Amino acid sequence: MLVEVIGFLAGIFTTLAALPQIIRTFKEKKVENISSYMFIALCIGVGLWTVYGIMKADWPIILTNGTSFILNGIMLFFKKKYSVKRKNSPS
Amino acid sequence: MLVEVIGFLAGIFTTLAALPQIIRTFKEKKVENISSYMFIALCIGVGLWTVYGIMKADWPIILTNGTSFILNGIMLFFKKKYSVKRKNSPS
Repeated sequence: MLVEVIGFLAGIFTTLAALPQIIRTFKEKKVENISSYMFIALCIGVGLWTVYGIMKADWPIILTNGTSFILNGIMLFFKKKYSVKRKNSPS
Repeated sequence: MLVEVIGFLAGIFTTLAALPQIIRTFKEKKVENISSYMFIALCIGVGLWTVYGIMKADWPIILTNGTSFILNGIMLFFKKKYSVKRKNSPS
């Protein structure tokens, strides 16, 4: 039982980790200091962890990494969107 | 066997994910767009995943999340270091 609680909490933190960055980027629309490769690697990594969890039928791993895949994907989308915008903007 | 390979690869990607951001920040010394809360949550999360792995005696989870804890800790250190520097700098 305890191990499931720890897995669940671990998953909550690693899943929510991308959220403050998503909110900050959505507000500021600035992404220069952020590395795309980090979020590409995170998407591939948590995607594989989701497969790992499915193969082990380990629900904490499946749910947390699946959600994390979506959030990191949003961050990657923001990185592309706000990087391109800056290049075209006249200033 | 296959599941261990997937867990190992997943771990490599999620562990290495912080590296490009660490290298970029080390070069640029700029952290304004980066959220501290993301790396605080990541440190807590992968720390708990390491405990989860120990309790399940699951080596892919232990090694990858332990290393990830160190890398995310470095990023957190950089965020503090380069944020403070900018406030004091005369320009």
